[in-house]
Amino acid sequence: MKRIAVDAMGGDHAPKAIVEGVNRAIQDFSDIEVQLYGHEDKIREYLTVKERVTIIHTQEKIDSDDEPTKAIRRKKEASMVLAAKAVKEERADALLSAGNTGALLAAGLLVVGRIKGIERPGLMSTLPTTNGQGFDMLDLGANAENTPTHLLQYAVLGSFYAKTVRGIAKPRVGLLNNGTEATKGDTLHKEAYDLLSREPSIHFIGNVEARDVMHGVADVVVTDGFTGNAVLKAIEGTAMTIMGSLKSSLTSGGFKAKLGALLLKDSLYQLKETMDYSSAGGAVLFGLKAPLVKSHGSSDAQAIYHTIKQIRAMLATDVVNQLVTTFSKEVQGD
Amino acid sequence: MKRIAVDAMGGDHAPKAIVEGVNRAIQDFSDIEVQLYGHEDKIREYLTVKERVTIIHTQEKIDSDDEPTKAIRRKKEASMVLAAKAVKEERADALLSAGNTGALLAAGLLVVGRIKGIERPGLMSTLPTTNGQGFDMLDLGANAENTPTHLLQYAVLGSFYAKTVRGIAKPRVGLLNNGTEATKGDTLHKEAYDLLSREPSIHFIGNVEARDVMHGVADVVVTDGFTGNAVLKAIEGTAMTIMGSLKSSLTSGGFKAKLGALLLKDSLYQLKETMDYSSAGGAVLFGLKAPLVKSHGSSDAQAIYHTIKQIRAMLATDVVNQLVTTFSKEVQGD
Repeated sequence: MKRIAVDAMGGDHAPKAIVEGVNRAIQDFSDIEVQLYGHEDKIREYLTVKERVTIIHTQEKIDSDDEPTKAIRRKKEASMVLAAKAVKEERADALLSAGNTGALLAAGLLVVGRIKGIERPGLMSTLPTTNGQGFDMLDLGANAENTPTHLLQYAVLGSFYAKTVRGIAKPRVGLLNNGTEATKGDTLHKEAYDLLSREPSIHFIGNVEARDVMHGVADVVVTDGFTGNAVLKAIEGTAMTIMGSLKSSLTSGGFKAKLGALLLKDSLYQLKETMDYSSAGGAVLFGLKAPLVKSHGSSDAQAIYHTIKQIRAMLATDVVNQLVTTFSKEVQGD
Repeated sequence: MKRIAVDAMGGDHAPKAIVEGVNRAIQDFSDIEVQLYGHEDKIREYLTVKERVTIIHTQEKIDSDDEPTKAIRRKKEASMVLAAKAVKEERADALLSAGNTGALLAAGLLVVGRIKGIERPGLMSTLPTTNGQGFDMLDLGANAENTPTHLLQYAVLGSFYAKTVRGIAKPRVGLLNNGTEATKGDTLHKEAYDLLSREPSIHFIGNVEARDVMHGVADVVVTDGFTGNAVLKAIEGTAMTIMGSLKSSLTSGGFKAKLGALLLKDSLYQLKETMDYSSAGGAVLFGLKAPLVKSHGSSDAQAIYHTIKQIRAMLATDVVNQLVTTFSKEVQGD
């Protein structure tokens, strides 16, 4: 049985979207058990399943504008903190939250703890590509500054995830840079390029550019947290802007456009599905002793369901324990 | 009369697209004079205008895969180098090229030269926003590494451009960062934030995120060249991916989808126009003694025409000479 600790109070549509996602997941997956941390009455309002689900009541929660580290240290009874403690104390195998990202990172570092040998956990997501395969990118912003060694560790982590969870035999690892030539980039990226080329455990294919990642040039894209965060937000912003403009040009376009939109409904829906981040699951804070998964703040029940499905797949492959073994060997071998 | 030196041999569709863009611009703007640098016979094949246009023949040109600095130093007769020399020697007021970006940057630094007081020229573009206003962003990749002082200079440069060329009375300047709070970012961005807040000549509105720039949160977005390059390429890649998927889901969607697409043609065209970078002109290498403007490598005649229009507007406001005055004062005042 896979035991998932869920922060029922985090996110724009909590607890409704969270609990409804859990309802669906419990029905579909007979091998999971969910612990819901949060306000019992508010959770019960939406909870329809009875088996394999426990409510751990608490009135405290972390707000989206709380200062992360302070919140984790002071709000000892917050739903997110209690869920992290359950993971730390091995009463749960993974944590899911759609709440304050910074606070979740802080909970990961301060409560759950890093895998020995990993300097800085990175935030990783599987992002969509036109061929439907997707690519894993990290660090998406867990850190504001990274060293070349961090980037090497992200390459190993991402490669490991692509291999074990996504079943890609020999994941192509690319370094996000400002050009494809080997000599490109600032000092950080030049040094990282060098480290990545010399690492035998990964299949490094060289530098990749942000313009090509959605075309599937690599299975794993390694980047520092500052750039990764900016690129992810640029992709999100552009996608939302275009889809928004498309929608408004359809609705404001008069009868002809409305009829056209009606005829195109299936095709547009298909496009939306391809671009839909919610079905790709959440962002994994990777490099911790247990998977902490962040679902988007605006997650609906569907996104929560998919994130639980993703956590289930991660737990099935035992990816984190395999990482612990790998990194402890490397550290000893140093 | 505004004298524009045009590299007729740079870009994927050169010299055809370049010359056709020039034809149209000469017809529309009676106050410009164009010098076409490149292979005379190949240029004549497309040139339809006769007045206010000169051909300066040369057989040498810089290729897209040439190593930038080496190419500028060795290919002394290349169309781009001759055009840069004309600007340097004040036989032309501005340069337009759709060729090798790195080489154009090198030509700017080595041939044309920096404005006194500006440490590192930045690459700047006016990018589209949903409200049609657009925003200026720099540095988009002229530099792989920047200091806080460079970022301050970009804020002053961008603000100057938005004011004089785009007519925005009090341009809102934002610093691209990984969160909107004042304390966000790595060391570079924290220090830049501090410098920007203390600069009296600009209207600094704080940090902005890549996700919001297309919604017009700022008129000028300041960023280091590494991040700016990645964000620009992420925006381009995402827009192209979505438009491509839209097109393929329309054409593969059977009769109903095709009929729908036909009815929607106007609305989709309007969307494409909003997102169209080509009508916004080229990227200006800003901080040099004269404007060097880079049009996209894949520019068609329409994009070249719009870039000439943009250069004409810049020359009309005399923005570069105003900058020279401003920065020389600041340097003396130090």
